[in-house]
Amino acid sequence: MQKPTIDLNADFGEGYGSYAFGDDAALLGSITSASIACGWHAGDARTMRTSVERCLLAGVAVGAHPGYPDRQGFGRRAMALDAEEVYEAVLYQTGALQAFVRAAGGELRHIKPHGAMYHRCGASQAHADAVARAAAELGGLALFGPPGGLLERAAVSAGLPFAAEGFADRAYLPDGSLAGRDRPGAVHGEPSQALEQALTIALRGEAPALGGGFAPVAARTLCLHGDGPGAAELAALIRAGLEAAGVAVRAPWQP
Amino acid sequence: MQKPTIDLNADFGEGYGSYAFGDDAALLGSITSASIACGWHAGDARTMRTSVERCLLAGVAVGAHPGYPDRQGFGRRAMALDAEEVYEAVLYQTGALQAFVRAAGGELRHIKPHGAMYHRCGASQAHADAVARAAAELGGLALFGPPGGLLERAAVSAGLPFAAEGFADRAYLPDGSLAGRDRPGAVHGEPSQALEQALTIALRGEAPALGGGFAPVAARTLCLHGDGPGAAELAALIRAGLEAAGVAVRAPWQP
Amino acid sequence: MQKPTIDLNADFGEGYGSYAFGDDAALLGSITSASIACGWHAGDARTMRTSVERCLLAGVAVGAHPGYPDRQGFGRRAMALDAEEVYEAVLYQTGALQAFVRAAGGELRHIKPHGAMYHRCGASQAHADAVARAAAELGGLALFGPPGGLLERAAVSAGLPFAAEGFADRAYLPDGSLAGRDRPGAVHGEPSQALEQALTIALRGEAPALGGGFAPVAARTLCLHGDGPGAAELAALIRAGLEAAGVAVRAPWQP
Amino acid sequence: MQKPTIDLNADFGEGYGSYAFGDDAALLGSITSASIACGWHAGDARTMRTSVERCLLAGVAVGAHPGYPDRQGFGRRAMALDAEEVYEAVLYQTGALQAFVRAAGGELRHIKPHGAMYHRCGASQAHADAVARAAAELGGLALFGPPGGLLERAAVSAGLPFAAEGFADRAYLPDGSLAGRDRPGAVHGEPSQALEQALTIALRGEAPALGGGFAPVAARTLCLHGDGPGAAELAALIRAGLEAAGVAVRAPWQP
Repeated sequence: MQKPTIDLNADFGEGYGSYAFGDDAALLGSITSASIACGWHAGDARTMRTSVERCLLAGVAVGAHPGYPDRQGFGRRAMALDAEEVYEAVLYQTGALQAFVRAAGGELRHIKPHGAMYHRCGASQAHADAVARAAAELGGLALFGPPGGLLERAAVSAGLPFAAEGFADRAYLPDGSLAGRDRPGAVHGEPSQALEQALTIALRGEAPALGGGFAPVAARTLCLHGDGPGAAELAALIRAGLEAAGVAVRAPWQP
Repeated sequence: MQKPTIDLNADFGEGYGSYAFGDDAALLGSITSASIACGWHAGDARTMRTSVERCLLAGVAVGAHPGYPDRQGFGRRAMALDAEEVYEAVLYQTGALQAFVRAAGGELRHIKPHGAMYHRCGASQAHADAVARAAAELGGLALFGPPGGLLERAAVSAGLPFAAEGFADRAYLPDGSLAGRDRPGAVHGEPSQALEQALTIALRGEAPALGGGFAPVAARTLCLHGDGPGAAELAALIRAGLEAAGVAVRAPWQP
Repeated sequence: MQKPTIDLNADFGEGYGSYAFGDDAALLGSITSASIACGWHAGDARTMRTSVERCLLAGVAVGAHPGYPDRQGFGRRAMALDAEEVYEAVLYQTGALQAFVRAAGGELRHIKPHGAMYHRCGASQAHADAVARAAAELGGLALFGPPGGLLERAAVSAGLPFAAEGFADRAYLPDGSLAGRDRPGAVHGEPSQALEQALTIALRGEAPALGGGFAPVAARTLCLHGDGPGAAELAALIRAGLEAAGVAVRAPWQP
Repeated sequence: MQKPTIDLNADFGEGYGSYAFGDDAALLGSITSASIACGWHAGDARTMRTSVERCLLAGVAVGAHPGYPDRQGFGRRAMALDAEEVYEAVLYQTGALQAFVRAAGGELRHIKPHGAMYHRCGASQAHADAVARAAAELGGLALFGPPGGLLERAAVSAGLPFAAEGFADRAYLPDGSLAGRDRPGAVHGEPSQALEQALTIALRGEAPALGGGFAPVAARTLCLHGDGPGAAELAALIRAGLEAAGVAVRAPWQP
């Protein structure tokens, strides 16, 4: 029987120049995939280079985390980029990161759009397809996105690998969608609660649903965080708890 | 006997967003290599994509034209980037451009640093070596630079192809260096004078020297301009004049 | 009887660094108000300084033309800035311009939001009020905006002067709103047509309506353009035509 | 007999968008002047607004801290801006900040150039004069700079108030200049040592010199730091120690 398997990913390298963001170093022992910022919403050439080198040294699979050209707003503000502009934004940023990965002797694995671009790809098939087109032209990179959404459809259409992403610390509704952050109980404050959800997702493909019962969450990767108090500790707790429960924690498509 | 051969290059794609710069379209029939801006001193993802596609369609060899992170100053202002920062700047920008070239089915050929970065590479071997290191890691790209300078030495050390660059419209001193722009006669205002110099460089490897006699100019490529009044006409004149004189005009390392 | 009066305004100083945009110099003899870009969507400190000095020298009233922080998209792409962010964006940019105007011995007169910010202020009272709040705190600057829209309401609420803006070269619908650019006939290609509309607006407060009849256009200022072929010639034609018809062409609130 | 008096200043508001920098809040109880970043090397409109409001609420005098247009390098990299460009850079940034100060009902007091611009003003009278010219045109703002340097000379020439700046935690050479950071002992690691130096500067206008004896340090303001471990604690210690020793700690030109 095959061992249950999950990937632990985190956004990575989101500092800029003299500015730090989150505690990347503390995450390296817990995560198995990193989505590295590429200089538009966050990150810069020096940070990208260092991030790539640290990930490869730690055996963490490297992906790109391209965003909107909005450093002031950290790529979180909606911007009216059309699908062609998103294609170009992803090709530019991911191409730049790929150069650093190759220079360090590694291989770029996936693309996970950031912030407002991620949300836009969940609402517009043309935008999701634009990301997939760039991923295909960059050598057939995988896409990360929500299970069953437009990014998954785009990946399938383009013949790309896809890793559905789940969350340990966000509450799900019975239909498997995430509860809005403004709902009471939408974010799990207790580490034990997040660990429990990580376990049910990894072992059974479901998460406790807000209001009772379980929601289907067919996630191949769980998104952890490097910023916020206790983030690195939570990541370590989830990593240890998964392994203690017999889950193989590794990047998708890794042997 | 081998036919005399020269490349005609120009900086390309140096607009930004809604801003045009120079008349790229008018140059396409005259040049055989283009150094495309990569988004820091000029250019943006859309402009890069369009520039790459137009060059490939016209059979013009594509290179990268990375610069300092100074869009306001068009990359012409000296900035105290150390050699590692230049390495990272070139890797980032050229990697981004390479993605567009590959997406369009072409191959990136060379790197020519822009403006203040070009000048810095002429004064610091560490900076020139940094560019060469990036070029090597991006797949062994050629370097463009002045004949006999530090960029040439860097290319040779790194085992990279190198194309020495000359100018048709700038006056040379007897030792083969360029006359400073502030000297009278430093820029050839007459198209016929520029054409004559293009011919002596291509046919005999020398240019008329300021003050009389000839200066050695062992150039494999001549730098033309797309901005300024009459620029495109001058480029066409030089192209036609060279071919009429039996010079093969083509990109370096092209069959 | 009072002479009919109108202001002719244009966006101004929308170049950036080495990039030119439009032909500001050619407009200076035709316009009576200029809305100068402030460095976010276009313009930079040097361009602002030069633009201010040229306008004051020509007797053209100076206003601010603040935009979204999107130089790549020229401030034309919608961005999800909330009203507080717009307030801060306008205060920052207009404050910077005001320093140049004062240094040149002049007085800043008005604010006209640019592009996507202008459109946002037409759809959200909170955003329009944010602009008015900044204008009030900068010394009671006037606002420019469409007649009867949210910017006008914001100006009235804040006790600020307001100049309703009309267009000579855009077609109006019978209710006085602008015809969408995608409708046939939405833009007047003929200079004579634009001049005729400038005259009916200035003399009778109405414009020929698309489909027949006249639309009410209670404009105190007409927006001319400095970019595009024939723009400066059209501006000169309108200025001359208005004066020939007995219209006093001058900035609002000028004696 | 007049009480000895000193100002305690710190750079302020040097975060950007989502990025924090230093612990401004912790400094507010210790400093009497703040030099607020203006958006080029650090800071943004929201951060400027918040910083101004917090300083005014705490009774801290507000100044501007303009820098080079190099956010990636935090304004610390030398850039070849000529004196006119520095004038324009200071006018733009300080004008923007002044708008926020006025909107909050306060008054802008001084300008202290940042990083590489500060150093450039210590080496070029033309650049120092450019800052003074901007300060004069913005209403006669004071300048902060090293005692006896070119900024002081520029302020005197322009008829502007000037506050000579000293350091509690940097070692001085016998001639009153700062010891280079690469010299052993150049930075005082011990809080008690920094406090002692603050006291000798405030009470006697001199600091212990590296190698023995005392150096003349005629400082009217001491520069504290908000970043680095223990920075806020050191600031509080120095404030308390100065007041315990009978020194009046207040902004220059405050009653």
